Amino acid sequence: MDLQNEMEKRAVLFNTYWQRFLQIKQPVVLYEATQYLPLAGGKRFRPFLTMVSCESVSGEPEKALPLAAGLELIHNFTLVHDDIMDHSMLRRNLPAVHMKFGEPAAILAGDLLFAKAFEAILSISIDFSIFKQLQQDFINCIIAICEGQQLDMEFEKRRTVTEQEYLEMISKKTGALFELSAKGGGLVGDGNPQEITALQTYGMTLGLAFQIWDDYLDMSSTKSTLGKDIGNDIRNGKKTLIAVHSLIHATGKQKKLLDDCFGNHDASEHDVAMVYDLFRDLGSVDYAQRRAMHFVGQAKEALSVLKQSTAKELLSQLIEYTIEREK
Amino acid sequence: MDLQNEMEKRAVLFNTYWQRFLQIKQPVVLYEATQYLPLAGGKRFRPFLTMVSCESVSGEPEKALPLAAGLELIHNFTLVHDDIMDHSMLRRNLPAVHMKFGEPAAILAGDLLFAKAFEAILSISIDFSIFKQLQQDFINCIIAICEGQQLDMEFEKRRTVTEQEYLEMISKKTGALFELSAKGGGLVGDGNPQEITALQTYGMTLGLAFQIWDDYLDMSSTKSTLGKDIGNDIRNGKKTLIAVHSLIHATGKQKKLLDDCFGNHDASEHDVAMVYDLFRDLGSVDYAQRRAMHFVGQAKEALSVLKQSTAKELLSQLIEYTIEREK
Repeated sequence: MDLQNEMEKRAVLFNTYWQRFLQIKQPVVLYEATQYLPLAGGKRFRPFLTMVSCESVSGEPEKALPLAAGLELIHNFTLVHDDIMDHSMLRRNLPAVHMKFGEPAAILAGDLLFAKAFEAILSISIDFSIFKQLQQDFINCIIAICEGQQLDMEFEKRRTVTEQEYLEMISKKTGALFELSAKGGGLVGDGNPQEITALQTYGMTLGLAFQIWDDYLDMSSTKSTLGKDIGNDIRNGKKTLIAVHSLIHATGKQKKLLDDCFGNHDASEHDVAMVYDLFRDLGSVDYAQRRAMHFVGQAKEALSVLKQSTAKELLSQLIEYTIEREK
Repeated sequence: MDLQNEMEKRAVLFNTYWQRFLQIKQPVVLYEATQYLPLAGGKRFRPFLTMVSCESVSGEPEKALPLAAGLELIHNFTLVHDDIMDHSMLRRNLPAVHMKFGEPAAILAGDLLFAKAFEAILSISIDFSIFKQLQQDFINCIIAICEGQQLDMEFEKRRTVTEQEYLEMISKKTGALFELSAKGGGLVGDGNPQEITALQTYGMTLGLAFQIWDDYLDMSSTKSTLGKDIGNDIRNGKKTLIAVHSLIHATGKQKKLLDDCFGNHDASEHDVAMVYDLFRDLGSVDYAQRRAMHFVGQAKEALSVLKQSTAKELLSQLIEYTIEREK
């Protein structure tokens, strides 16, 4: 069983389904801005997680489609708004929505995706009491993402951030959506409470590993590929786990280098390269890798509760995929 | 029975209730930005409409509180985001949220209010089938508001707009929320289909009259109070019904004046005053007043379906209030 192949199969199913939420209407420009990012591709990682979690408790993957669509619409809405806030120019190798359609249309496009997400979850076939719980989870997840984004922006302006604060931020900004993707898949698949708790833990820890690995990938690239993003992250003082670790452990000259260059928008290429080297010298890049592996271990452990199935095998492979991917 | 007094009574009830959606949590700045506009006052026009509509079909006003809170949260979310798009500096005589907290926090605050609105409607005690219909109405209303805002922005860049286009825009931007406030109040109050249709028509036509009257009020002020807003509206080429009417009926020199000055960001004070006079000379200000009265008539007619009650009397007085208020 090939994970990539299984991901692609379900992505086809998902893409066919969720197009109903992305139809062009009047005013055309607004709807073009709305469908632009959702239809720009993407691996449909979260929908896959939702569908396979549903399958892991013996539910049909089709039953998870409305929830998967809702979660993917939320994911896209947050990307559109985050890119405005972060002044990001590119997303998925294309101009960000606000770069292509202007900021007002991008704000509205995000709002429209947000509304459509709630339309999507209305189609889930479950009892009212479970629906209420799921919609409340859905809302809490969105609120967590907003809080995470706010923390991420606040952290950039701070000198130091503890590892605990960093973990809280990414558990909200990235973990919450992974968590609900897995847990929600289990809920609509009618899993038992033990299975649902296991999927929830699996989703959250997978999300944490995913995010830390993202930071690690950025920083573990060889200097020859040291891209604009790393330079920006260093100049913006972005508090990745690597930066958090270095800021805590640097002393003397190292500390002075970070004080002078990390979070300094005018830092030179040379300064950026020095900080980049320091992150490795202090063992912070290796540390992030170890921490990602720690959460990978927790995700694997959570899975042990689930009964043996093809879906469980896929969820297991997904963990490996998370820390093997090179972006 | 005094309308103002009844509005204030229900505003107290409403304000006490909806505070649960506006509690301060971490990160504090985000939540301060979120509660800033909602707690900055306001007449709670829409919550009043929802509660009294519920009462008009013999429902308890308390039963309408969750929906009223949802609609008022949506109203506030759209104001926060619209003010960013429109570069508005003030709202309710205070700095707009993005002016006080910065644009990123304002985008997130709007998103949080949006999410909280869906939390609010989860508390409505109704059957699942009615809930599904109501949530879909709620979503359609939000989408309409987004479309209306997009049209409003597009119209500013166009030379002319037909009256029909203008009415479509305000029916989305303002009418939809009034419509759902009244209809939704009837739904949660368990009104019969005729009552609900009547309330729906009442809400929409009241909203249209309300918005046109807003335009009229702005332009009917004496020149001594000709404020910054009118100048801005003329310089931005804002397509109020008054402007729409003048753009259609101006000929010769009048047309040239509009071509040169309406929608010209560099128009002088003198130019603005000339356009302002032209709007009156062409009968456009009077025309807007007549059109507002037309929708007032439709709103009154819709009410005739409802059985006699104190609530019906309040809804009737609310129509008069809409065209008597001086802002």
